[in-house]
Amino acid sequence: MSEKNIMSYETVSLDDEKSALVILNQTKLPYEVEIMNLTEQKDIWNAIYLLQVRGAPAIGVAAGFGVYLAAKQIQADTYEDFYKQFKAAKEYLDSARPTAVNLSWALNRMEQVVLVNGDKSVAQLKELLHKECVAIKDEDVWMCRQIGEYGLSLIKDGYGILTHCNAGQLATSKYGTALAPIHLGRERGMNFKVFTDETRPLLQGARLSAFELHADGVDTTVICDNMASQVMKNGWVQAVFVGCDRVAANGDACNKIGTSGVAILAKYYGIPFYVCGPTSTIDMSIARGEDITIEQRPAEEVTEMWYKKRMAPEGVGVYNPAFDFADNELITAIITEYGIARPPYTESLKEIFRKKLEDQKK
Amino acid sequence: MSEKNIMSYETVSLDDEKSALVILNQTKLPYEVEIMNLTEQKDIWNAIYLLQVRGAPAIGVAAGFGVYLAAKQIQADTYEDFYKQFKAAKEYLDSARPTAVNLSWALNRMEQVVLVNGDKSVAQLKELLHKECVAIKDEDVWMCRQIGEYGLSLIKDGYGILTHCNAGQLATSKYGTALAPIHLGRERGMNFKVFTDETRPLLQGARLSAFELHADGVDTTVICDNMASQVMKNGWVQAVFVGCDRVAANGDACNKIGTSGVAILAKYYGIPFYVCGPTSTIDMSIARGEDITIEQRPAEEVTEMWYKKRMAPEGVGVYNPAFDFADNELITAIITEYGIARPPYTESLKEIFRKKLEDQKK
Repeated sequence: MSEKNIMSYETVSLDDEKSALVILNQTKLPYEVEIMNLTEQKDIWNAIYLLQVRGAPAIGVAAGFGVYLAAKQIQADTYEDFYKQFKAAKEYLDSARPTAVNLSWALNRMEQVVLVNGDKSVAQLKELLHKECVAIKDEDVWMCRQIGEYGLSLIKDGYGILTHCNAGQLATSKYGTALAPIHLGRERGMNFKVFTDETRPLLQGARLSAFELHADGVDTTVICDNMASQVMKNGWVQAVFVGCDRVAANGDACNKIGTSGVAILAKYYGIPFYVCGPTSTIDMSIARGEDITIEQRPAEEVTEMWYKKRMAPEGVGVYNPAFDFADNELITAIITEYGIARPPYTESLKEIFRKKLEDQKK
Repeated sequence: MSEKNIMSYETVSLDDEKSALVILNQTKLPYEVEIMNLTEQKDIWNAIYLLQVRGAPAIGVAAGFGVYLAAKQIQADTYEDFYKQFKAAKEYLDSARPTAVNLSWALNRMEQVVLVNGDKSVAQLKELLHKECVAIKDEDVWMCRQIGEYGLSLIKDGYGILTHCNAGQLATSKYGTALAPIHLGRERGMNFKVFTDETRPLLQGARLSAFELHADGVDTTVICDNMASQVMKNGWVQAVFVGCDRVAANGDACNKIGTSGVAILAKYYGIPFYVCGPTSTIDMSIARGEDITIEQRPAEEVTEMWYKKRMAPEGVGVYNPAFDFADNELITAIITEYGIARPPYTESLKEIFRKKLEDQKK
């Protein structure tokens, strides 16, 4: 890890000397900063399963490091024996969260290294796997830094910025997506005043975004979701940055529940609303936000949260969608690692993918 | 109480036979329905002080009943002796919440009865005081029913209605203000589908509005504040009803924090946004919302609420305004006991007061 870290700890890193995957245990935030040094495969599996490491990019990076550490321990005389043991280790980690796309994506990428290097020695294979898992993280950092650079070009030192949920370093290897411009600006000595919506029901804003921003020395203020309008009315917000879970071809951006409301408020108060995400979250096969199915989550998240006492009467209904989407007309720009897309998005997003393709041809 | 109750319990009532003030202990909602029969003055004082009875109109009614019960026990041979004892009882109750306007308003009104009836016997005075405290409650019920009638004229059976915080029966003697159209409609066999914003940080929507609506058999769904946009986008809301803490002469309506956000969302989705409140909350001496000072409350309400664990990191800032105001341009109508005011409010609110004055002359 040649990168100097922006906080005093990283989300996920490799300690090759100690043969350990090092993670910040996110299930204990914000009460406790627990750095875990995981050397056993079952502990790495558990870390992914128990969301001690979370966020699609961060999970991919952890899996890459994890399967490399398994490979490093393999005692094998032949390629076939090595691959057999590698494959078992890979499948074991892959079972930790079966639906997490980045998990299997990273593990398949690691397997590919073994598959295309049948002529190499076991020692050479281990070396190549080390290179690959480091590359996975480096690329993630690159992607986030690109988003950060593009985002930073849209704001100025001293801006008030509002964010919703956590699309930060804690979900990636470094910088994050929505929070990348803030962290990157911070590296350059800039200061922003950031308002984090607490983000009910699970409070990722209060627990995670506030934690990482505060740890990075950012002037951070937690507000309840329903206070965003007043904060904007006060003139304290010059830009809104949010992440995204999926973006449709027309630019409709699906993200944590509450995002569409923030977008409408921003439009009302004349504040730019920026959606940040890697091109991997833009789904050109989906025409519009209405075509994205929104996950409904358990009522208890709303009525009980971390209490043992109920916060709402027994018997009432609860509506608890995990996501909503901001209509493309509410979005000032979509910021990706290949540039800034502006309306009309049906055109500009295609242009982003053309740039990506060109870049990959190089 | 000749009124048939809309729930199986009342917010505040008088049991003259048992010489008791009967209240629903709101500090235990929604976990427990505790009906308290208060016969001792110190218990009545405590009920007001500890917010076991809350909401400006309900406090006024409780104080009227409370001081009547004190008067009822008075042993006195002369008017002077009676008044002296009455005055002491009145001042004692008045000290429970020194800044609650309705508390001293109701107690002064009761005292006035004694003051203007120096020629009456002690028995007659007690009888007159009984009449007065019942009248205070009856007028409160009348005011709420009027608001309910006017509100009901704006909606139809089957409507989806969204509300924020609690401006319901639990804050008044009956019906409430924002929830009056729903309860009144219910008495007439109508059914609405009501969404209650949970209303962070203190969750009055989840705890109180959901409780009283559910108890009245209303189809009630609790949502987190940040879900209102999605509920509106789904087409589930045909009208928004909120209460108000103070309305400026231009119609800007100050109410629980989050109200302005809901108003902006309603406008975006083309949904009428109605503010309900008695004329006593309209302050014609205040020109506009910006002139209303907004109370800032303790950070712990946001970061700890009823947890013992912190929900946000130590050291981060917290912004916790108790109220915001909806710009008059966002408000479809303001519903009072003297009719419905529509834009431009600088004119229509004056008209409401003209009607009130005429009515009082009768």
